[in-house]
Amino acid sequence: MRTFDKSNQLFERAMNVIPGGIPGHQSPTLLVFGQSPCFIERAEGPRFWDVDGNEYIDYMCAYGPMVIGYNEPKVEAAFRAQSQKTDTGNLPSERYVELAERLVEIIPIADWSIFGKNGSDVTSYALRVARAQTGRSKIIMAEGSYHGIGAWCISFDTGIMPGERADILTFEYNDTEGFKRLVEENKDDVAGVIITPFRHDAFHDSEMPAPGFHETIRKTCDDIGAIFIVDDVRAGFRMHMGGSLEQFGVRPDLICFSKALGNGHPISACVGRNALKDAASQVFFTGSFFTSAAPMAAALATLEEMEANDSIKIMYERGEMLKDGMLDQADTHQQEVSYTGPETLPFMTFKSEDGWERAKLFCQECYQRGVFFHPFHNWFISAAHTEEDIKKTLEVTDAAFKLVKEQMG
Amino acid sequence: MRTFDKSNQLFERAMNVIPGGIPGHQSPTLLVFGQSPCFIERAEGPRFWDVDGNEYIDYMCAYGPMVIGYNEPKVEAAFRAQSQKTDTGNLPSERYVELAERLVEIIPIADWSIFGKNGSDVTSYALRVARAQTGRSKIIMAEGSYHGIGAWCISFDTGIMPGERADILTFEYNDTEGFKRLVEENKDDVAGVIITPFRHDAFHDSEMPAPGFHETIRKTCDDIGAIFIVDDVRAGFRMHMGGSLEQFGVRPDLICFSKALGNGHPISACVGRNALKDAASQVFFTGSFFTSAAPMAAALATLEEMEANDSIKIMYERGEMLKDGMLDQADTHQQEVSYTGPETLPFMTFKSEDGWERAKLFCQECYQRGVFFHPFHNWFISAAHTEEDIKKTLEVTDAAFKLVKEQMG
Repeated sequence: MRTFDKSNQLFERAMNVIPGGIPGHQSPTLLVFGQSPCFIERAEGPRFWDVDGNEYIDYMCAYGPMVIGYNEPKVEAAFRAQSQKTDTGNLPSERYVELAERLVEIIPIADWSIFGKNGSDVTSYALRVARAQTGRSKIIMAEGSYHGIGAWCISFDTGIMPGERADILTFEYNDTEGFKRLVEENKDDVAGVIITPFRHDAFHDSEMPAPGFHETIRKTCDDIGAIFIVDDVRAGFRMHMGGSLEQFGVRPDLICFSKALGNGHPISACVGRNALKDAASQVFFTGSFFTSAAPMAAALATLEEMEANDSIKIMYERGEMLKDGMLDQADTHQQEVSYTGPETLPFMTFKSEDGWERAKLFCQECYQRGVFFHPFHNWFISAAHTEEDIKKTLEVTDAAFKLVKEQMG
Repeated sequence: MRTFDKSNQLFERAMNVIPGGIPGHQSPTLLVFGQSPCFIERAEGPRFWDVDGNEYIDYMCAYGPMVIGYNEPKVEAAFRAQSQKTDTGNLPSERYVELAERLVEIIPIADWSIFGKNGSDVTSYALRVARAQTGRSKIIMAEGSYHGIGAWCISFDTGIMPGERADILTFEYNDTEGFKRLVEENKDDVAGVIITPFRHDAFHDSEMPAPGFHETIRKTCDDIGAIFIVDDVRAGFRMHMGGSLEQFGVRPDLICFSKALGNGHPISACVGRNALKDAASQVFFTGSFFTSAAPMAAALATLEEMEANDSIKIMYERGEMLKDGMLDQADTHQQEVSYTGPETLPFMTFKSEDGWERAKLFCQECYQRGVFFHPFHNWFISAAHTEEDIKKTLEVTDAAFKLVKEQMG
C-alpha cells in the first residue's frame, strides 16, 4: 500500500506559509486529497516520483507543458548551453529572433510573434491587439472557458471589480445560434472572439467543436470586421504543429501559445497576421523575463524534436491505444463512461450519478498502482509515452475499473 | 570605434517577425538607437558581450534581475541540480515550501508568501487580496508609477478599456497632502494603496520618499482599514533583505517581489501578514509555471549568497564609490547633473535644457568605451561589481563627461 506521509507533512508546512498550501490548479485538494501526492521529487520521460518515492506514469504532463518527456536530453542540453551564455539580460539573444522566425515558418497564420511568460500574458495581450485594431470594446468568449487569471477571464471573481470584465460577453461553447445572437445584439462593438480549439473546461466532459462552429466564428468575424483569437495555450502543439485549428481547416487571426512550447520551460507566445502587426506594436507588452534566452533555446529544440520525430502523430497513436483499451475495459467492467476530447488531450468521466465519486475512486486506485490521472481535469499524452507505457497503464486501469465495479457496482 | 553591425542586422530581422522588433522596456530604440547594442551574446559576473563582440561593465543588470552577477556559479549550480530532478511538474517540489519559509524568516512583515512569474502577476494579485479583505473597490497609486502590464496599471492605454481601470485613483508620488485629500474624498471605498519604495519612473529623476510620506500612508491605511501594498519588484533585495521599506522603518501589509529574487531566473512573490491570509487564499491565483522548482532553487541560493556575503552592504559601497566619482567628474567637467535614488539603484540626468541629448551622448560614449548605462531609466548596481570595476567605469565616465563638455559645453 502506497502512502503519502512525506507529501502530507510537506503540505502541512505549506499551509503554514502559503495561502491555501498549494493554490490554484495544482492544489492536491483537487485530486483525491490524502490519497494522492502533493509534492514531486524527480521526473524523467513520461514518469515522475513523488517525495514519498512513489513512481507514476504521468498523464497530466505538468498540466500540459511536458510534451516530449520530462528532462528531455536535447531540450535540456539546448537550455543549458544557452543559459551558460546569456539568459535574462538587458537585451534578448539571437534565439529570440530565431524562435519568432521558426514560429512564422511552421504556423500558417503567423506573420509575426511576440513572447511572454504565462498563458495569461498572451491571451490578455491578444484582446488588447483586437481592441487596438478595431477601435471597439467587446470581446466574446465561451462561458466557463479558462483563458488565464486576467481580470477579464478569471474563473472566480474574488477581488475582481465588475468594470474589469464589463466588456466581456459570453455564450455556451458550441452554441452556434447563441453566438450569432450575441453578435447580432452587439455587432458594431465586437472587437474580437476568443475560443479554445475544443471545449476543455474542468469538471465537464470535453467537447469537440460542433460541425460548422469554427467556420461560423471565422465567417462572422470576417463579416463584422472582428478579430478571431484562438487560445491554444492548453492544446497547442498537441493537435497540430501549425496551431490546433489547422486540424479543422479553419484559420484564426491571432493564436496564443504557452505550456508545451518550451517542454516545461516558461514561455508563451502570441502569433498573428500581418494585418494586425501595427496594432500589435502599439500595445505595450513587456516583462522582466519576457526575452530570457534559455527558454527560447528550449522552445527551438522542442519544436525541432517534435518535427523530426512527428511527435503529434506519436501522441495520437498512443492516445488512441489508451482510449481503445480503456473503453474496452469500461465495457468489460460494465462502467458507463464518457471518453472525450482529442486522443492527445483525453478526459474520462463516469456517466452515473455518483460520477465524481467513481472518478475519484478510479484515480485513487490508479495512484496506488503507479498511474497518474486527474478526476476533474482533462489529461495529456506526451510523445515520451511508449507503447509499453500504455500497456502497463492499461493493466492498472483494468484493475481500477474492476475495483470501482466491485465497490460501487 | 565599436560598431553594432550584427546587432543592427538582427534587429532588422526582428522587425520582420516581431511587432516593434524588441517591444517594451528593452527596446533598443529607448537607448541610443544605432549607437548601442540590440542583442547579447554572453554574460558573466557584472559584464556582458553583445553579438558584435563588444564588452561592457553593466549597470542595468537585466533591468534588475541580476543582483549577484550573471551566471553566478552557486545559483546556477542550485538551478541545474534542481532542474535535473524536477522543474515544471504536476505539483511543486520541496523547494516551494522552503522558499516560502525562507521569505517568512527574512522579511519581518511576511507570515506567508505566494509565487508567480512576472512582477505584474503579484502586483495584480495584491490588489485582489486588498479588495477581498476589505470588500472595497478603490486602489490608490502614484501617477506614472510602473507596476506592470495589468490593465489597471499599464503605462500606455492602447487596447485598454476605461472600466478596467475605473477603480484606480492617482496622486503624485511624495505629495502627502494630495494623498490625504484623495483618501478624504474616497474614504469608505479605499481597499488599498500601492506604492514603490521610492519614486523611480523612467524619464524622471528618482525621488526618495519625502519625510513622513511612508508614515502617512501607514497611518492612513490603519485609520481607514485599507491595505498598504509595496511594489518592491524593482528595488527589492537592493535596499534591504527584509523589504525596502525596512530601511525607512515603515512596515506595509503586502510586499511584491520579482526581478532580483532569483538572480535572473523567472520568479515573483507576494508576501503578507497573517491577517490577510484568508483573503489571500480566496483569490484564485495560478499559472502553468508558477510552481516550477528550478527558479525556486535559484532564489534560495541567491538569498543564501546575499546573506552570507552581506551583498546589500557591498552594493551600497560600490554605489557610493560610483556616485562620489561621477559627481566629482561632473563638477570637474562643469556639468550640472542630478544623481538621484538609492546608491544601489542610482540614476543620473543632466540638468540643462538639452538634458536628454546630453544623456544620450554621455551613454553613447560610455557604450563606445565599454560601460553600459541607460539614458532614461534608473540604473542598477550588483554585488558582483568590484572596486576595480568601478575604477574602470570611472575612467570611462571621465572621458564621456569630457566629451559631452567639448561637444555641448
